[in-house]
Amino acid sequence: MPVNYATPSAASLFPVAGVRLGIAAAGIRKTNRHDLTLIELAAGSRVAGVFTQNPFCAAPVQVCQQHLAGHGIRALLINTGIANAGTGEAGLLAARASCSALAALLGLSDRQVLPFSTGVIMEPLPLKRIVSALPNCQSALRGDSQGWLAAAHAIMTTDTVAKVASRQIMIAGKPVTVTGMSKGAGMIKPNMATMLGFVATDAAITQPLLEQMVKEVADVSFNCISVDGDTSTNDSFILIATGAAGNAEIASAARADYAALRDAVAAVAGELAQAIVRDGEGATKFIEIAVDGGLDAAECKAVGYAIAHSPLVKTAFFASDPNLGRILAAIGNAAQACATLADLDVRTVKLWLGDILVAEYGGRAASYHEADGARAMAPSEILVRVDLGRGSAHARLWTCDLSYDYVKINADYRS
Amino acid sequence: MPVNYATPSAASLFPVAGVRLGIAAAGIRKTNRHDLTLIELAAGSRVAGVFTQNPFCAAPVQVCQQHLAGHGIRALLINTGIANAGTGEAGLLAARASCSALAALLGLSDRQVLPFSTGVIMEPLPLKRIVSALPNCQSALRGDSQGWLAAAHAIMTTDTVAKVASRQIMIAGKPVTVTGMSKGAGMIKPNMATMLGFVATDAAITQPLLEQMVKEVADVSFNCISVDGDTSTNDSFILIATGAAGNAEIASAARADYAALRDAVAAVAGELAQAIVRDGEGATKFIEIAVDGGLDAAECKAVGYAIAHSPLVKTAFFASDPNLGRILAAIGNAAQACATLADLDVRTVKLWLGDILVAEYGGRAASYHEADGARAMAPSEILVRVDLGRGSAHARLWTCDLSYDYVKINADYRS
Repeated sequence: MPVNYATPSAASLFPVAGVRLGIAAAGIRKTNRHDLTLIELAAGSRVAGVFTQNPFCAAPVQVCQQHLAGHGIRALLINTGIANAGTGEAGLLAARASCSALAALLGLSDRQVLPFSTGVIMEPLPLKRIVSALPNCQSALRGDSQGWLAAAHAIMTTDTVAKVASRQIMIAGKPVTVTGMSKGAGMIKPNMATMLGFVATDAAITQPLLEQMVKEVADVSFNCISVDGDTSTNDSFILIATGAAGNAEIASAARADYAALRDAVAAVAGELAQAIVRDGEGATKFIEIAVDGGLDAAECKAVGYAIAHSPLVKTAFFASDPNLGRILAAIGNAAQACATLADLDVRTVKLWLGDILVAEYGGRAASYHEADGARAMAPSEILVRVDLGRGSAHARLWTCDLSYDYVKINADYRS
Repeated sequence: MPVNYATPSAASLFPVAGVRLGIAAAGIRKTNRHDLTLIELAAGSRVAGVFTQNPFCAAPVQVCQQHLAGHGIRALLINTGIANAGTGEAGLLAARASCSALAALLGLSDRQVLPFSTGVIMEPLPLKRIVSALPNCQSALRGDSQGWLAAAHAIMTTDTVAKVASRQIMIAGKPVTVTGMSKGAGMIKPNMATMLGFVATDAAITQPLLEQMVKEVADVSFNCISVDGDTSTNDSFILIATGAAGNAEIASAARADYAALRDAVAAVAGELAQAIVRDGEGATKFIEIAVDGGLDAAECKAVGYAIAHSPLVKTAFFASDPNLGRILAAIGNAAQACATLADLDVRTVKLWLGDILVAEYGGRAASYHEADGARAMAPSEILVRVDLGRGSAHARLWTCDLSYDYVKINADYRS
C-alpha cells in the first residue's frame, strides 16, 4: 500500500499530441503479464535523457546514450522482468538487436530507437520473445490517456501502483501539456536519474534547451529521492518534446516560456519521483528531509542522505519511536561522505520534527518534550528539518521508512 | 542467536595481571540489571585508544581524549543504558563529574579516569545513580577470568552474548597474556574504532608503541566490520598494557617482540570484532568480503563497504537467494563513495562466491550455474571475493545479513 498515493484517473491525465503508447505480453519472466511497452513519437520530436552513474550500467543505458548522441528519435521500447545489466557483450548485442527489429517494423533506422529494461540483473534478455511481441505492441498503439495508464502499468516491477502525473499550462497563448510516468520501488537512490521516468510535452523547444531542462529537472526531482540507498544499473529519465502544441519554439533559457515549461515539467517529475518513494518497498511513511544552512548544496545533500540511508533512523520512523538521537548520529556520519563537513561544529546544528525543535547546542533542546516527539512521529507524512548554521545553501529530499515488508519483498523478489 | 559464536568459557579466558574488574547495578535505565563496570589498572599501566570520527561524538569520548593526552590512567568506568551523546555541555559536565567521583573513591586524580557510555542517544546521564553505585563496583573488583566474564555481560546493550577473547604467547622467554572484551550489535560501522572494545595485556611496552599498535590493530579488526553502516557516536577501542609480565620493555616497532604482541592483540581484537558481526542485530549469516586487485586499499574498502551496506545484497543473503546481480550493482555504486573508481572498467572485474566464479567480462561467467550459486548462498558463513583487476591492493571486511529481526529489534529498542 503506497503512502498517500493513488494512480490518477484517466480523466485527470492529459494525453500529449505526437505520443502514442502500446503494450503487449511478451512472456519475458512471467506469462500473461504485460511486460513490453512501445512509445511512438511523431516526426520532429526531440528527446533528451539522463542516466545512472553506476559503472555497471545496463546495456540499454549504453545504447540509449549512443543513440541520443544522434537525433531524430522516433520510438522507445521498454521491457520489464529482465534488466539486461551485468550481461556483458551479449547484453549489448541483444539491446541493439531489439532496436533493429523495432526499427524494421516501423520503417526507421536502428539509431532512432531507444531501449530500456528493468528487472533482474545478470540474466540474459529473451530477445526472441521480445521481437515476437513487437507487432502486438504496434497494433495496440493509442494516443489517449488510457494508453498512458496501460503503459504505466506495464513498466511496473515491484511497484504496487502505476505512477502517472500530468499538467496543462499556457505558453505564449497556446495550451501546452506535460504528462509522464515512472516506475520504481526498490534499488532507488538515483544519481542523475531514476529507475525509469518518462515525461513528454507537446511544447516546441530547441534540442540544447531540452537537454539543459532534463538535467535541471532531474536535480530537483528524481535526484532527490532514496528508498534504500542502492543506485540502480538501469536508471533513466527521458524528456520528450513533440512540438505539436504549435507554440513559438522555446529558444532561450532566460525567457519566461522556458521557466514556465521547466516548472511544469518539474512539477510532473517531482510528483512521479515522490510517487516512487510513496510506493517504496514496504513503506509505511513518507519523509521529507530539508537541510538548510550548509556551505554548499553538496554538504546539505550529504546530510540529507545520511539521514535517509540510516537503517536505524528508518526503523525508528517505522516504529513511530522518537529515538531522535539516531538522527544526530546520522548527521555526524555525513562527514564520512563529504569532506567539507569534517569541521562541522555540532553546537550550531538545529534539528526539528515538523515545527518541534528537537536539538540545539549539541544536545536536546530545553523546550523539547518526548510527548511532542511522539506526536510528530505518528503521522504518515513527516518533515525532518536540519539547520547546519554555517552557510546559506539548502537541499531537500524524500525517503520512506524501513519496515518488515522491505525485508520480505527483497528476500522473496525472485522466488 | 549469534552466527557460530558462543562466549568462551572461563577456563579458556586468561586473566591479565594488573587488571581487576567489578560490576554493579546502578539502575541507569532498568532496575536489577548490571549496567556499571569498573576496570582498575595497576600503577604503571599504559593506555592508548582510538575513537569514533562522528562529529556528534559522545561526551565520554571527548573526556577520554582529553585524559589520554596526559598519562597515568588507573581506572575505566563504563555504563550501559545511556550513551551520553547528543547531550551538549550538560553531558560533558556529567561525564567529568563521574570521573571525579570515582577518582575520589580510589584516591586518584580526575584525569586518571576514563569514562565510557553506551545506550540511547540524547538522554541525560543519571549521574546520581551512577555515583551511588561506585562503591558496589569497587567492592566487587576481582582479577580472575570470572571478573572479565561478568564485565563482558555488564557492558552489553542489544547484544545477545557476551564477547571475550584471549591469547597467551611467549615474548623473550616470558609468558604474556592478551585478553579483551567488546560489545555492539547495531549502529556498527566503526571508523577508527568500534562501539566499545577493551583489550589488556600484561606485556611491557613503551607509550608511543602502544599508541601505534592500537591504530594498527583497529585497522585490521574493528575498522573492518559493519552491521548496518551507521557509525556510532560512542565508538571506543582501548588497549591497556600493565607491564606485569616482566618482559624487557618493547621499545622498537621493527623488532620481533613488537610483531609478536601486535599479532596476538590483533588476533584477540579480530575475534572480538567478528563476534560483534556474528551477534549483529537479527543476523543469520556471517559474510566475509575480500576485495583484491584495487589501485589502493581505500578503493578496495569502498567496494567492500558498498557490498556490505547494500540492503538489497543483505536481504538476498538472508533469503539464500543467489540474486547476485545485486552485488555487481553494489560494486558499481562504490564509485559514488570513492573518486578513483570513476574509471573502473567493469570488464576486468571478477566476482566469486566461495570458489564459484559468478561474473567476469562485465557479466555472468559462462561456467556459472544458478544451482552452484544457490549452494554457495546456503551456509551460515559465506565468502564473497571480488578482483577489481587493476592493481595489487586488497582489503577484507566482515558483515552480516539483513533480516526481519533487524527491523524488529530497532523498531522496538526503546520500548
